[in-house]
Amino acid sequence: MSELLSVDCDSTVFHLVWSDGTHATYPYIWLRDNDPGELHPHTRERLFDLTSVSLDISPESWQQASAHLLVKWHDKSTESIYPLDWLLENRPGKHRADPAVVSLNYWSAADLPAIPRFDARLCRESGSTLVDALQEAKRHGLVIFEGLEDDDQAGENLGELIGFKRRTNFGTTFEVVNKPSPNNLAYTALPLPLHTDLPNQEQVPGYQFLHCLRNSVTGGASVFADGFRICTDLRAQAPDDFDLLSGLQIPWRFHDENDDVRFRRSIIELDSMGDLSGLAFNAHIADVADLPSSQLLDFYQAYQGLMQRIREPQYRICHTLGPGEMVMFDNRRVLHGREGFDPGSGERHLRGFYVEHNEVNSRIRTLAIS
Amino acid sequence: MSELLSVDCDSTVFHLVWSDGTHATYPYIWLRDNDPGELHPHTRERLFDLTSVSLDISPESWQQASAHLLVKWHDKSTESIYPLDWLLENRPGKHRADPAVVSLNYWSAADLPAIPRFDARLCRESGSTLVDALQEAKRHGLVIFEGLEDDDQAGENLGELIGFKRRTNFGTTFEVVNKPSPNNLAYTALPLPLHTDLPNQEQVPGYQFLHCLRNSVTGGASVFADGFRICTDLRAQAPDDFDLLSGLQIPWRFHDENDDVRFRRSIIELDSMGDLSGLAFNAHIADVADLPSSQLLDFYQAYQGLMQRIREPQYRICHTLGPGEMVMFDNRRVLHGREGFDPGSGERHLRGFYVEHNEVNSRIRTLAIS
Repeated sequence: MSELLSVDCDSTVFHLVWSDGTHATYPYIWLRDNDPGELHPHTRERLFDLTSVSLDISPESWQQASAHLLVKWHDKSTESIYPLDWLLENRPGKHRADPAVVSLNYWSAADLPAIPRFDARLCRESGSTLVDALQEAKRHGLVIFEGLEDDDQAGENLGELIGFKRRTNFGTTFEVVNKPSPNNLAYTALPLPLHTDLPNQEQVPGYQFLHCLRNSVTGGASVFADGFRICTDLRAQAPDDFDLLSGLQIPWRFHDENDDVRFRRSIIELDSMGDLSGLAFNAHIADVADLPSSQLLDFYQAYQGLMQRIREPQYRICHTLGPGEMVMFDNRRVLHGREGFDPGSGERHLRGFYVEHNEVNSRIRTLAIS
Repeated sequence: MSELLSVDCDSTVFHLVWSDGTHATYPYIWLRDNDPGELHPHTRERLFDLTSVSLDISPESWQQASAHLLVKWHDKSTESIYPLDWLLENRPGKHRADPAVVSLNYWSAADLPAIPRFDARLCRESGSTLVDALQEAKRHGLVIFEGLEDDDQAGENLGELIGFKRRTNFGTTFEVVNKPSPNNLAYTALPLPLHTDLPNQEQVPGYQFLHCLRNSVTGGASVFADGFRICTDLRAQAPDDFDLLSGLQIPWRFHDENDDVRFRRSIIELDSMGDLSGLAFNAHIADVADLPSSQLLDFYQAYQGLMQRIREPQYRICHTLGPGEMVMFDNRRVLHGREGFDPGSGERHLRGFYVEHNEVNSRIRTLAIS
């Protein structure tokens, strides 16, 4: 543990220097607002009311104890106690350590010769194995769980260890089988080009799980590609197309007799730092593009170009899921599809569900500290 | 119905002129991609593969029939049939009519002397009454359903007519009662300053419903304020604060023994047009602000200023919910809170749940056309 070497203060801040060379600056108003003693004892939520003090608050007195900085404020009768290790860990400008933040591997087929695989039984028995699997699912956007029990519920049961399922208009789970009157092309025997699910939703589902119950048909291999790798290459090689596809919002829509779910979003989504944060690509439910005519030719040029790029073999990996396997992939990053199959040649049945990024991240954090 | 007066074409587009004065331009590639005949007959999803044609596609021939434009393409053996009313309705540059888009009323207390109220029984019996209620809930961000049956499930049952419930780490429904070991301040008898729920979630819940089962305590009135009105005033009166609060992302966190749900987001969220799209304001679960020290004093100045503004009486409306009432409000726009109450004076029990914007919009659309 690093030791506190010195404490200086001026009219608005403390300056602390640590033995590992860390210098940190703590505004008084920040310290008052984050008094560890003013959290609710059960909920850990902040009880302190920021409007009760002035922005130019400063200590009445302070002292350094062995493992704490003690500060007496004018507006509070007791001293506020700041543990030194808390001050080091939570110093301004430093993001808190988070096991759910992993380095990402944007892959093409050559970089990911095999989809990372994890034994379902080991994941059930060991929190650390499950954390490994979930961190790898974040890193590559794609993992397979293998060795699931011979039980239709085995995939859902493993999913319950990770987080609860996100319900959509297709239900909490959905059965990917060939249906007589489908409301979605997934429920046919047609080939499905690479796509992401549900760009028509305000909140696009995070991780998709597909548990293979039966697969004895001719054809029907699953296909995956890393959309973030494709977008990264697009950004380098055709920056105008990238800018257009990340800047223009287009309409997406699913409708049947019960639902009419529409949303406008760009195909490529960037975060506030300009980094990739989402890919929405599903030609089947792209609604009629209502951009002004003057933009449409540029849009189609960029859109068709991305579509062609997505189909390049260099990005594509295939795997025929067998019973006892469940694939988990990031639906806002990794494109999925399947080869067509002969519905008369056997049975093909996958059970799907979604778990949000949120829940996966929370599970990584709670398992990583236990 | 407007009539088609003329059709002209050049190398890339059709120009159509209608009797109501509408001029519209249809790029050929757009027409080919949106051929109404190349949608799956059941799913209505697009089957046409855009990569199968060249961007500079043009008609082999075309003709105007009474109610259709017929186009023969080189790559397709049969004519594509575009209904004229479809072409008018879906012309480029025109957003599709959408009953879920309503004009918004950003209110202060003087503008909304009473919360709009709808009879629950009428909403159950009449789709058009329910649509009215949901559109008003969008317009003002807040409505009350009254006259619910004397049944603990009555609120959930009405909710089912609107959409399914969004599950969170607090469950699919949550009971707002005073609990001995709460994991959330809502589950105490403390006053709750105005706030929005769950800014720590990647996807913040859309509408919140609170069904009053029992309320016989002294105190405990519900309080509401329109965050978008407050932000609009902030933008006009303190634009630097507005820019800072919409530009800086800060961490939010809820954690207990089962969950550790964190997300970074700005307090004020803008859409791509710079319009207000969300407000996230909950001091209780604002995590330790990890901005650089040099930004913290500006941040606290803007943040405390917003907090003071939110508490101004001009924005605040109060209503003591009684049994048989359920409030519905937009959790990404309208702040809610409550006055403290004396837990020994009686019982207070609200049952809460969330339904996403998505589902509410879908229900408005399906009810509005039926």
